[in-house]
Amino acid sequence: MWKRSLVLSAPGKVILHGEHAVVHGKVALATALDLRTFLRMTPRQDGKISLQLPNLGSQLSWEAAELRPLLAAFSVELPEAQPPSAEQVEKLKEFAGGDYGHEAVQSVAAAAFLYLYLSVASKYGVLPTVDILVWSELPTGAGLGSSAAYSVCLAGALLFGCGAISYPLQEGQETARWTKEELDVINRLAFRGEQVIHGNPSGVDNAVSTWGGALRYISGQISVLKSVPTLRILLTNTKVPRSTKILVAGVKAKLLEFPTIMEPMLATIDAISRECEGILEAMTKDPSQEHYSRLEDLVDINQHLLNGIGVGHALLDRVCQVTSSHGLHSKLTGAGGGGCAITLLRPGRFRRGREALIPTY
Amino acid sequence: MWKRSLVLSAPGKVILHGEHAVVHGKVALATALDLRTFLRMTPRQDGKISLQLPNLGSQLSWEAAELRPLLAAFSVELPEAQPPSAEQVEKLKEFAGGDYGHEAVQSVAAAAFLYLYLSVASKYGVLPTVDILVWSELPTGAGLGSSAAYSVCLAGALLFGCGAISYPLQEGQETARWTKEELDVINRLAFRGEQVIHGNPSGVDNAVSTWGGALRYISGQISVLKSVPTLRILLTNTKVPRSTKILVAGVKAKLLEFPTIMEPMLATIDAISRECEGILEAMTKDPSQEHYSRLEDLVDINQHLLNGIGVGHALLDRVCQVTSSHGLHSKLTGAGGGGCAITLLRPGRFRRGREALIPTY
Repeated sequence: MWKRSLVLSAPGKVILHGEHAVVHGKVALATALDLRTFLRMTPRQDGKISLQLPNLGSQLSWEAAELRPLLAAFSVELPEAQPPSAEQVEKLKEFAGGDYGHEAVQSVAAAAFLYLYLSVASKYGVLPTVDILVWSELPTGAGLGSSAAYSVCLAGALLFGCGAISYPLQEGQETARWTKEELDVINRLAFRGEQVIHGNPSGVDNAVSTWGGALRYISGQISVLKSVPTLRILLTNTKVPRSTKILVAGVKAKLLEFPTIMEPMLATIDAISRECEGILEAMTKDPSQEHYSRLEDLVDINQHLLNGIGVGHALLDRVCQVTSSHGLHSKLTGAGGGGCAITLLRPGRFRRGREALIPTY
Repeated sequence: MWKRSLVLSAPGKVILHGEHAVVHGKVALATALDLRTFLRMTPRQDGKISLQLPNLGSQLSWEAAELRPLLAAFSVELPEAQPPSAEQVEKLKEFAGGDYGHEAVQSVAAAAFLYLYLSVASKYGVLPTVDILVWSELPTGAGLGSSAAYSVCLAGALLFGCGAISYPLQEGQETARWTKEELDVINRLAFRGEQVIHGNPSGVDNAVSTWGGALRYISGQISVLKSVPTLRILLTNTKVPRSTKILVAGVKAKLLEFPTIMEPMLATIDAISRECEGILEAMTKDPSQEHYSRLEDLVDINQHLLNGIGVGHALLDRVCQVTSSHGLHSKLTGAGGGGCAITLLRPGRFRRGREALIPTY
């Protein structure tokens, strides 16, 4: 048993290209963001498990003895186990307590924690009594993978707490990374957390958050891009709330109404993702400015296509206009209809990107 | 020989869908506009031929005796003859006189007139001494087919003047239309006028202007749409000047740089034209509002695609935004990069469309 606090972190993500098209079997490219979620786990000696989520204003704790009777019902064998059932999730929300209501993000976060805790405890036969504090640089519900980063942090901490993975830090090290095999176990468990939170997630977000870097997703197959350059991206949150489900359904409806038009449009988005993948690979060998101009073209074209398939928003257009007036190229990222836009920044330009752009709004 | 004035007219055109894609072998749909060019031809007894173009502020006249020596050099056999050579056109611009400069629209218009006059006179062995006055509701150089309407009017008048086609008006009639066979001769001659003015035109503009209605163009094949409803369209001229040649070259360059992306985009535009054709046909049987909502979707999608292939303009976006705030749907028409936008108006709404929209700019 370790005595000190363990601090770990996992990044959020953005979709570079392929949002929506990915639902219809096309390639999407996702990349880790330099905005992270942090977790500090400290052992407790009082037989309690506590969860503090300052971003959500939520603080909960349970007796280990309360949780023990639940173990049997939440036993899972990774990775082939059934996904969390709606009944299990409802039961955990109830058990979690707090007066948030079942749909509240606090209830969902607590249910995900309890599900992961009980799964790991059941599998490894240990109920670690710990205080877990999770805080994040990522806004919630903005399509930046905050829930996946949360699940990855919890999975890493709980697997370590149960002795399933090593203590990664060597004497004298400040930071360390788990091995590929350990990260794989973390990723698979984190996916269960994502299932509790989202129902039927693609697995892209937890994979990016676990592995970092960039990855390619197509029809359930995730592969990590071998070598990608570090891209500087300005992220703009329109703060326009939207429903991913409704947006996805809208694209589906359009595909049914105009199949001969929508199919080549989605094929175009697929081609953009593949072209982008090739450019990123070429950039690691030759980081010339020419590659940036091609990346910018892809950003522009995809933004028009995303508008064309009906997932744009006037405020996203405004972001594109404002950044364009600075010679920059932007597109929505994620579900669209609001949410966030990404703007590609060339190296050496707009070092203080945000500051340079804010006054123009 | 007829004694009175003959007045005839021909319409301008808009491209509904398929601009730019048509250059790459895709379908385009063009339709006649309710804005026309008019020609009045009056016989003269003084051996002169005069051409008045009040829209261009141009007034020219020649002695028939001056023109006679040119006949041999401009003899053409329709329709298999060679297109007008650059040398012929230059020679005619010089002959036309006026101090406009060779690139001026006045010089080009005079050269087209002289080319058509000499072609017809040579073929039919008559040099009609007439005063020709042409005026138009169509702006020049806005992509609305003003040059084609001009060529069609000239072709009709000159063919009639040489006795090649009938006097179409029966006793007591106010207006009439030439027969299909006569219109075919007019169209072929008008195409020669377009060649003088544009070098390498597609033939769409003169065909729409000759036949009226709507037509479909693909890879040099023009077919008239059998039955189309009358669409009410608001036309907005951004008055942003642009070069069709440069815009076409830009699309070509993009196609060479990103073939895997541009090809499905152009295929999408092709699918939009074909879908639109089907909807127009269905509308003549069942003019329900549902068809309009589909036509509006096509307008929106194509506008985004045209932006995607790089032929948009901020002012065209502005037209789309303003009309959208009135629940209307707009796209650029023609070459883009400025020029005109069309806005679809549903029947019964915005009876005074222009007046309702102007104050919002």
